[in-house]
Amino acid sequence: MTTSDHTPSYVEKGKGFDRDMTYVPDRITAGARTPEHGPVNGELWPVEPGRYRLIAARACPWANRAIIVRELLGLQDVISIGLPGPTHDQRSWTFDLDEGEVDPVLGIHFLKDAYEKRFPGYPRGITVPTIVDERTGEIVTNDFPWITHDFFHEWKEFHAEGAPNLWPEELREEMDVVNKRVFTEVNNGVYRCGFAGSQEAYEDAYDRLFTALDWLEERLATRRYLMGSAITEADVRLFTTLVRFDAVYHGHFKCNRNKLTEMPNLWGYARDLFQTPGFGETVDFDQIKAHYYVVHSDINPTGIVPKGPDAAVWETSHGRESLA
Amino acid sequence: MTTSDHTPSYVEKGKGFDRDMTYVPDRITAGARTPEHGPVNGELWPVEPGRYRLIAARACPWANRAIIVRELLGLQDVISIGLPGPTHDQRSWTFDLDEGEVDPVLGIHFLKDAYEKRFPGYPRGITVPTIVDERTGEIVTNDFPWITHDFFHEWKEFHAEGAPNLWPEELREEMDVVNKRVFTEVNNGVYRCGFAGSQEAYEDAYDRLFTALDWLEERLATRRYLMGSAITEADVRLFTTLVRFDAVYHGHFKCNRNKLTEMPNLWGYARDLFQTPGFGETVDFDQIKAHYYVVHSDINPTGIVPKGPDAAVWETSHGRESLA
Repeated sequence: MTTSDHTPSYVEKGKGFDRDMTYVPDRITAGARTPEHGPVNGELWPVEPGRYRLIAARACPWANRAIIVRELLGLQDVISIGLPGPTHDQRSWTFDLDEGEVDPVLGIHFLKDAYEKRFPGYPRGITVPTIVDERTGEIVTNDFPWITHDFFHEWKEFHAEGAPNLWPEELREEMDVVNKRVFTEVNNGVYRCGFAGSQEAYEDAYDRLFTALDWLEERLATRRYLMGSAITEADVRLFTTLVRFDAVYHGHFKCNRNKLTEMPNLWGYARDLFQTPGFGETVDFDQIKAHYYVVHSDINPTGIVPKGPDAAVWETSHGRESLA
Repeated sequence: MTTSDHTPSYVEKGKGFDRDMTYVPDRITAGARTPEHGPVNGELWPVEPGRYRLIAARACPWANRAIIVRELLGLQDVISIGLPGPTHDQRSWTFDLDEGEVDPVLGIHFLKDAYEKRFPGYPRGITVPTIVDERTGEIVTNDFPWITHDFFHEWKEFHAEGAPNLWPEELREEMDVVNKRVFTEVNNGVYRCGFAGSQEAYEDAYDRLFTALDWLEERLATRRYLMGSAITEADVRLFTTLVRFDAVYHGHFKCNRNKLTEMPNLWGYARDLFQTPGFGETVDFDQIKAHYYVVHSDINPTGIVPKGPDAAVWETSHGRESLA
């Protein structure tokens, strides 16, 4: 849900960073039924292969989550994908990497147009991931935590054979706790460091972030994955932050107590996932770095994108196969 | 020679970074004789204990060099020291850490005043290290490479017993080559990365910097110190950049192929020096970070100073005693 929002500045002087969590809250569910989990604050749309297009920039961690889950579940032939480029101005993510700089299915340059088509004068940030109805070109939802949740729970009929169980029923309660802490302290925690408007807000965010990373480091000493011996949605959610950590958050967001590579369990775990089909091939370090270092001009006014670190380390052996 | 210069910006759009190398070129020599080495482009002043005051901010690597050499040679009772604080505005380094915010010997708040006293309307940057004549309060020199050179060659009569031979005659030729490469590629190389005005200038600077660090990494595989088995001025010059590398240059200047801690020989070498009397106790990481992150507002407009990395790693054992 990295946003090309309408405010001129990411860093508000003297303030902590509060993420705007108001999205277009519609859900896509099997037969448009009431979902088993989560809120119904908007309309319900029916699961229908070939109807929806996931718009998800590779640069953005929240969009990366949706790209990975779509891959893991084998939904590629059922839900199409459009990929805006890594940089954008205040107006909107844009399809600047596509031929003619328009999305080949939606025929638009600005993702914003899909929002405006449904909600003329749409007042909030234009974010990814967004799901668009291919029939009308209108946004369906950009409510990111529920997009991947519903890919699993609502699109089951269309999952590939042998797709992983990303939400094991018996782990759901524990997963909710883990996901919540990972979201507030890590996924969003790095942004809280980078967009802090005061030294005090930054230091508080930094302490919270590394307290959570220390907790995860310990948790992963005895578990191969966050919830045990199999990959779940909790891993996807953590992975997209970890894979950006040394390339962006460590320097750009000043999350610099240590690099990810200096936390052996987290670093082994992150590489383990990176080398798992569905993860590493969705990661584009050049796009990731370009996005953060170019778009956040109020924290990197020169717009210069760091050359390091060397991404080849992601392919080194992680040695975690022996963990339960 | 970090400067509080008069230009509004460190980063010049589209340009590489060129260091202004014009200083007040006077030299202090024994009996004001013509020095054996180096240029005579200004006046010659006589060595005289109790007459000169070294002004050297702990934050600044070029000033740190002079602080270390004064310590190593035991010149503390012969040349006094004044320590401006880490941050300053466009006008001048200032004595904001002293009681009443004035230097207790010179009685001035702005170092600039010592320049203006001798050269009214002085048009260049106010830099540290500076040597001031205590009798008149006027600047003698700020020509940093010759300040430490002359501490060794010209103040010999006042060196402490057992002071190290920082410029062994038989190594001088090789040292000149090493010093030159360390200066252009490393000491100044990090600034060339950080103050690059274009992506191309930055990438060129980054490649040059890490090429040189790789050369040093290899050189230090078989030598305990840069020139062999004993500490020389070449080590002092490299140390002041290395000790700032992970705290500042890696993130702030985007020198992020790797941290210093990821280059085993350089990292062992840097800790070896840090733990040698005269080195580590001159280093103040809080002042170092405050200086770069606050003063360079055009590359860190938020002014927020990173909390990391943990400086305690500098005290860990380095295992280099066994090297020749």
